[in-house]
Amino acid sequence: MSSERIIYLPLGGAGEIGMNAYVYGYGKPGEERLILVDIGVAFPDMDTTPGVDIIFADISWLKENRDRLEAIFITHAHEDHVGAIGHTWESLGVPIFARAFTANIARGKLAEYGHSPETVTTVSPWPETTKAGPFTVGFLPISHSIPESSGLVIDTPGGRLVHTGDFKLDANPVVGEAFDPELWAEVSKDGVKALICDSTNVFSPNPGRSEITVGPEIETLVASAPQMVIATTFASNVARVKTLAEAGERAGRSICLLGRAMRRMIEAAVETGVIGSFPKVISPEDATQIPRENVMLIVTGSQGERRAASAQLARGKYNGIELKEGDLFLFSSKTIPGNEKGVIQIMNSLSEKGVDIVDDDGGKYHVSGHANRPDLERMQDIVNPQIVVPMHGEHRHLREHMKLAEGRGRAGVLAINGTMVDLSGNQPTVAGYVETGRTYLDGSVQIGALDGIVRDRIRMALNGHVVVTVILDEEDEPLGEPWCELMGLPEIGRSNAPLVDILEEDLSQFLGRAGEKTLGDDDKLEEGMRRIVRNSSVNEIGKKPEVTVVISRLS
Amino acid sequence: MSSERIIYLPLGGAGEIGMNAYVYGYGKPGEERLILVDIGVAFPDMDTTPGVDIIFADISWLKENRDRLEAIFITHAHEDHVGAIGHTWESLGVPIFARAFTANIARGKLAEYGHSPETVTTVSPWPETTKAGPFTVGFLPISHSIPESSGLVIDTPGGRLVHTGDFKLDANPVVGEAFDPELWAEVSKDGVKALICDSTNVFSPNPGRSEITVGPEIETLVASAPQMVIATTFASNVARVKTLAEAGERAGRSICLLGRAMRRMIEAAVETGVIGSFPKVISPEDATQIPRENVMLIVTGSQGERRAASAQLARGKYNGIELKEGDLFLFSSKTIPGNEKGVIQIMNSLSEKGVDIVDDDGGKYHVSGHANRPDLERMQDIVNPQIVVPMHGEHRHLREHMKLAEGRGRAGVLAINGTMVDLSGNQPTVAGYVETGRTYLDGSVQIGALDGIVRDRIRMALNGHVVVTVILDEEDEPLGEPWCELMGLPEIGRSNAPLVDILEEDLSQFLGRAGEKTLGDDDKLEEGMRRIVRNSSVNEIGKKPEVTVVISRLS
Repeated sequence: MSSERIIYLPLGGAGEIGMNAYVYGYGKPGEERLILVDIGVAFPDMDTTPGVDIIFADISWLKENRDRLEAIFITHAHEDHVGAIGHTWESLGVPIFARAFTANIARGKLAEYGHSPETVTTVSPWPETTKAGPFTVGFLPISHSIPESSGLVIDTPGGRLVHTGDFKLDANPVVGEAFDPELWAEVSKDGVKALICDSTNVFSPNPGRSEITVGPEIETLVASAPQMVIATTFASNVARVKTLAEAGERAGRSICLLGRAMRRMIEAAVETGVIGSFPKVISPEDATQIPRENVMLIVTGSQGERRAASAQLARGKYNGIELKEGDLFLFSSKTIPGNEKGVIQIMNSLSEKGVDIVDDDGGKYHVSGHANRPDLERMQDIVNPQIVVPMHGEHRHLREHMKLAEGRGRAGVLAINGTMVDLSGNQPTVAGYVETGRTYLDGSVQIGALDGIVRDRIRMALNGHVVVTVILDEEDEPLGEPWCELMGLPEIGRSNAPLVDILEEDLSQFLGRAGEKTLGDDDKLEEGMRRIVRNSSVNEIGKKPEVTVVISRLS
Repeated sequence: MSSERIIYLPLGGAGEIGMNAYVYGYGKPGEERLILVDIGVAFPDMDTTPGVDIIFADISWLKENRDRLEAIFITHAHEDHVGAIGHTWESLGVPIFARAFTANIARGKLAEYGHSPETVTTVSPWPETTKAGPFTVGFLPISHSIPESSGLVIDTPGGRLVHTGDFKLDANPVVGEAFDPELWAEVSKDGVKALICDSTNVFSPNPGRSEITVGPEIETLVASAPQMVIATTFASNVARVKTLAEAGERAGRSICLLGRAMRRMIEAAVETGVIGSFPKVISPEDATQIPRENVMLIVTGSQGERRAASAQLARGKYNGIELKEGDLFLFSSKTIPGNEKGVIQIMNSLSEKGVDIVDDDGGKYHVSGHANRPDLERMQDIVNPQIVVPMHGEHRHLREHMKLAEGRGRAGVLAINGTMVDLSGNQPTVAGYVETGRTYLDGSVQIGALDGIVRDRIRMALNGHVVVTVILDEEDEPLGEPWCELMGLPEIGRSNAPLVDILEEDLSQFLGRAGEKTLGDDDKLEEGMRRIVRNSSVNEIGKKPEVTVVISRLS
């Protein structure tokens, strides 16, 4: 057990799509030097995380082992890979490495917490490499739905690992580097110990399509539109935004970008030179001054986000612009599972305005940024690793991806968040488990997913909340009657009398019956009053509310 | 304005998919005699209706005009068409008419409210008709994803209306009547004033597929499964349940049905004779006694419902049955938008158990129960109505369906819930608007969507809840310190001191500064204390909680 080993430890992203955070280690067991690859966010929902702002991996284990951490490497600038860097960096405090575009976005996030631009070192792609303890790490360009996405070539004294990052095999990605199979083969030719690989689209049976294929379709559509055209896509998909803008320009339209995230991404792309040219952009104010058939808006909010431009435009005037009968709204995007209702709501609001909607139902106006099943097979063939470690997927994706690898005669391992895998041998072995979970940013406070805070909110949302107040004098005798405040509950139930009156009457009777032992004991009194409220509520309104009992003693 | 007219007034189902409730009237304006077609439910979600049990159309207008209502007709037994009959019948009190299977289900719902079976009259299909005031109504068999679905032929002195109900054009529906184009043409040959038509699948470009096509695919899949097979589908899709059960039987498996709704539906289908034969069914207990490769479970919960059989089996042992590595779980269903997360959660839990999942991604194991765009065109051609009234759809579906009709040279009208349409002339005209909305069944109480109760719950879920208590003596002087109880909020914020201490300190200072005018006035005092709590909370935790202030005066 004293020989050195290579470990892989996902803290996030293996068991969900989102909040990626992967640790690699090399050294003697328990003394491995560590690097972190990506530190992203996931997004809350009303079902499980009401009121939460964002979610990221619980990195307590990394904080405890901070002295062993050498560096952070960010593969690309999607929120689920870089989004938590600002919220977590202070507790890790090591250098961050990324390519120019990603570094630009990361610096913006760090600046919100007052950290200087030097926190991030901009690195060039392979063959340039960065030393970090026992690791030598190079950024290997690969195509994805954002500029400068990169795989990582991670060299250790125990062998070479290839971490794909998010990727697709695109020979014509419009913006950024095409997938270069020769380069990937060259890097892999001396043997790769493990391929740690994106699993998102393992269930998609056909080879992925190139970004270049959507341009002509979009162009035809935009050219035929009689009134204003509005198109939405993921703000970070710079290639798509460019394709949309150029289609508009060719159709003689002026381009206006709406949404902070989209302007920020295009700005970063221009600043870092990842796009050479971009059509001239006009302001929303100018857009209102020219005939609507000469305008094309490209806007944020393809996932139905309530505060993004799409939703705002669907609701009414936004930045002085109002959509009208005959306008065309293009969703150049797919709806991520869970976001359907928000997107559909926007579609219906647009329909009420008489706006015609085109979505990607037919597959013409969007292509995925992730490798499909045959692409994953091709990647395995090119890199030819001993071991395949599926990452970036829910359990079902990881399992399917592992089966795919094993079916092709390679060693695979299903490692979900918290699973420490030893990659040193020919077969991966589980070296242990680390406590992981989710951290919520809630307002300005970071709370744990298991703290019970969000659970209480969900309970209040489902059951309503009753607050009971009672005052007791120095002799533990009730002073006046107890009273109730209801929040989120019907006012009148079965008896056709106000629920609050019925609860107060029942509580009053309870106090009348209660003996000294109960009246003198806060816990007993609280428990009794809670029971009364819950039972009476079930009788009256068929619900058991949450109950807070406030006991004031004048003693 | 004194001549008689035909009116159409959707109270639910026109502007959403769900809670169908369509009113027809005939007579002098304002004195029309009325019938109600369907009275269904919609399902709540955490985003907009936390804690609500079910949703149905606000029928206040019907209640106010109860003396004009002649009868209720139910087209078929889906929850969104019959689900609210039990909750609403008492306030309407008119006879209900339905075909045998639908009547069986409706009687079950009415029995829960103590209403007798005679409340529902079982009617035979066309050419039998029922008189209801000026209306003569016949049930015209049509294929759908439930037995005995029917369109309605509604004759009025002003002409014939055809209300399709939910339908598809299926020549081989496995269970129940095939679509009979000659019958529909015969009924329509003397002229149809208006076709009121299902819009659900107006965006589906290809003709719908027959139920008969899924059988062979399911059979092949089940026959090749090495271990237990579990299949889920909509409980009410009796044809599919039969297809699944017969595939299991042919593969030498014993069939076990899990889930109350599914057993109830098969029972109703057998009782009313809509299925002649159904494979022998064994109990869950017996299922555990035979080798798992000889068992097939058919279970509820295809939409990810937390309490249904699929979710229970995914979580652990259910009815003594436990799923294992190598079992096959088939989703013979599509996921209704909004239910994706629940379904995916089940898939991942199954994946953790090593269960292999087959869903309908490839379109092999499920077909829709609704008419696609070419089928809607065909229906228009057969019925050849003057006017097409799209129903059963969100705004975007209704609008597209109207455009489809107009594009083919027919009059169309976009009538959402509350729009009263006069169908008497050659062109439909809007005769007025009626207040509509949603009623929530919340526990045992019916509440209005705009009552604010659910809004308060959502606010507590997003913002947390602070309860402030203060006691004032006879001279309006605070007795002791004010205190706070937090629910759903972080305990510690920016100052690293308990939030509750900081709020109490700030409130105490406020009371110390407050003058007689404030202390003597509940509203002023409450407003001031709420402001303090909200401002201090924003500083500490970056959130503005909901605040309830309880003021006790000893006077």
